Amino acid sequence: MRVIVLGGDGYLGWPTALHLSARGHDVVAVDSLVRRRWDRECGTESLVAIASMPRRVERWRAESGREIEWRRLDVCQLDELTELVGSYDPHAVVHFAEQRSAPYSMISADHAVRTQVNNVTGTLNLLFALRDAAPRCHLVKLGTMGEYGTPNIDIEEGFLEVEHNGRRDRLPFPKQPRSFYHLSKVHDSHNIMFTCRAWGLSATDLNQGVVYGAFTPETELHPELRTRFDYDDVWGTVLNRFCAQAAIGHPLTVYGEGGQTRGLLDIRDTVRCVELAILNPPAPGEYRVFNQFTEQFSVGDLARRVEAARGAHGLATTVCHVPNPRTEAETHYYNARHQHLTDLGLVPHLLQDTLIDGVIALVERHRARIRPELFTPRVDWRRGGAHHFRPSGATLDVDAAPAGRV
Amino acid sequence: MRVIVLGGDGYLGWPTALHLSARGHDVVAVDSLVRRRWDRECGTESLVAIASMPRRVERWRAESGREIEWRRLDVCQLDELTELVGSYDPHAVVHFAEQRSAPYSMISADHAVRTQVNNVTGTLNLLFALRDAAPRCHLVKLGTMGEYGTPNIDIEEGFLEVEHNGRRDRLPFPKQPRSFYHLSKVHDSHNIMFTCRAWGLSATDLNQGVVYGAFTPETELHPELRTRFDYDDVWGTVLNRFCAQAAIGHPLTVYGEGGQTRGLLDIRDTVRCVELAILNPPAPGEYRVFNQFTEQFSVGDLARRVEAARGAHGLATTVCHVPNPRTEAETHYYNARHQHLTDLGLVPHLLQDTLIDGVIALVERHRARIRPELFTPRVDWRRGGAHHFRPSGATLDVDAAPAGRV
Repeated sequence: MRVIVLGGDGYLGWPTALHLSARGHDVVAVDSLVRRRWDRECGTESLVAIASMPRRVERWRAESGREIEWRRLDVCQLDELTELVGSYDPHAVVHFAEQRSAPYSMISADHAVRTQVNNVTGTLNLLFALRDAAPRCHLVKLGTMGEYGTPNIDIEEGFLEVEHNGRRDRLPFPKQPRSFYHLSKVHDSHNIMFTCRAWGLSATDLNQGVVYGAFTPETELHPELRTRFDYDDVWGTVLNRFCAQAAIGHPLTVYGEGGQTRGLLDIRDTVRCVELAILNPPAPGEYRVFNQFTEQFSVGDLARRVEAARGAHGLATTVCHVPNPRTEAETHYYNARHQHLTDLGLVPHLLQDTLIDGVIALVERHRARIRPELFTPRVDWRRGGAHHFRPSGATLDVDAAPAGRV
Repeated sequence: MRVIVLGGDGYLGWPTALHLSARGHDVVAVDSLVRRRWDRECGTESLVAIASMPRRVERWRAESGREIEWRRLDVCQLDELTELVGSYDPHAVVHFAEQRSAPYSMISADHAVRTQVNNVTGTLNLLFALRDAAPRCHLVKLGTMGEYGTPNIDIEEGFLEVEHNGRRDRLPFPKQPRSFYHLSKVHDSHNIMFTCRAWGLSATDLNQGVVYGAFTPETELHPELRTRFDYDDVWGTVLNRFCAQAAIGHPLTVYGEGGQTRGLLDIRDTVRCVELAILNPPAPGEYRVFNQFTEQFSVGDLARRVEAARGAHGLATTVCHVPNPRTEAETHYYNARHQHLTDLGLVPHLLQDTLIDGVIALVERHRARIRPELFTPRVDWRRGGAHHFRPSGATLDVDAAPAGRV
């Protein structure tokens, strides 16, 4: 199939582009490279040096004999996006091209507005581009399990059968997101659902859990194919951060009580789930939601898993609780369904000590680049964190060089 | 009380400012005047010539002896908004300052993006301004009944008690809006709900129905106090448009079958509802929703009411059905609760022939300004309507004169 991967320079976008190419699909990887600029603004950097996109696709050609077409393009530019979609005529567009950090969105009013404007505008542009240039193309959109929040009932996949005062309907599952970033994804979901109904577009909204892991089979083929690894307070996901802390003997920092429970998945399952969605498209006009995670854990569970994996090698790890910078329930009911992708054939990589060992080993190889001060949360949900960050004007520095090169 | 009315130049914002001032509150009316520019873009104009804001507040001072402070300010400018909120220290901020036309939002990608960016950015800025400068201030936000769409169950006021798999929760009512404008209000609602929870802000979200009528007691005091009256395809609400058509002997144009049922209210009840919300603020941290309408009618019902009101004077009116430019159910269940404002003391102005007669008489006095070609819908929900409108660049003409002066 012909597939466009928007956000192809990202932690997940790049491995997805590689996976789809390895599986024989024709792939165009698109990115504005804005994330590399946001790194400079936040003083953060991928632990693993990442090659530029031209180097990556050249290396992939050398290693695999397959072509990934690279296009630098901002989805907020409607004309270029429409031209791309119209000329390439994809079977599917995978949309990762959003600001994806909850802490980043909570830094200041400017960051909240920028996150929502960037994400909503990019997705609206994509919907119009599809309507006008490729109305039969399947939109595969990355949403988040964080759209649901933590309701006191089971979380279903996108919709809820409701009986009320003797009448019934199947309604969108109520959303209670807990950051301006997560809210931006809820806005996107509503916009996409509307256009499926009004224009007959077809979309799969992948409400993804928290991703962990550092590699897929393709990223391991050569150092220039690696994807980014974030361990810091702004971009790092929780298990990757714990592994980074464990690798350098830093205490694992649990926010608050650690009872916050979320769905998680291995990065190798992310790329597989995206392909399963593409291979099994929805009907014209259908808007469907897959909850894309494989297991649920509390933050405390994850810390104990890392502690245990280290203990198996005779290594001691301490766990400490730090004041929670987020406004979220620390003890709550959580039971989220995730059946659709299993029904399509997903065989999950469940969390094992070997995965944790592998991530820790990766961090150890790059330990000289770890900056432990980035483990400390700089953004508080109540007060923001603007004074820790460079002025937002820094992000307008469009043509600066990529942050890391091999 | 001290009240800031954002959007104080609008159809409802201006009568609300007058009503609150007449009832003894201290009012600052704020507007960017962007709506007068959007009129020029769309080739539309208020049927009733409206005075400039300086003339309006001067005339109000002369008529009532009371002061409304006028401030030209765009809520998308965070610093100015925060300064205003901080220096005025209001008990309540009433937020009407949004792009409020569904057809306008459906013209093109640019109009969809502009609507959502304008509305979401303005509301986010206001939330940050309140957090940082007036955290105890009560936010009274104008939402819309259109956020709910037309579910097959009774519509509750903002929240739904759900029982699912043996567990219970009170969850946000699922939203199924049907235009990019209505979607922008859903985005706002989610953003506001989050900040009440995270920051302890207090907000009332007034999910307002379709407003009809042309005057309140205050706007009738002098021609320079009148509010705008829109009868066109982009800005006109359905009953006002039918009255305008009846006044000049034009057939009443029902979109599609006319079974679309909505909640409606008289403009005199809008201003009263806003005051009731202000006088009865929510608790700190509370986000509450009032469904602000008084009766529900189908579009076909409304056409028949206008026809009957004309018939009582021996005048014949024809009703015709035109292809529906919108993607909406034309036959559906609709039963929406609207109890909270009644409980606070609202005594509604129910729709009567005398109101219809009054609006028609107003249109007759200004019939020379009616342009019947503006009754024809120029915006189709499926294809948009960009070729009927001036280039969007026209809206950047910031300092052009207001559209109408007395």
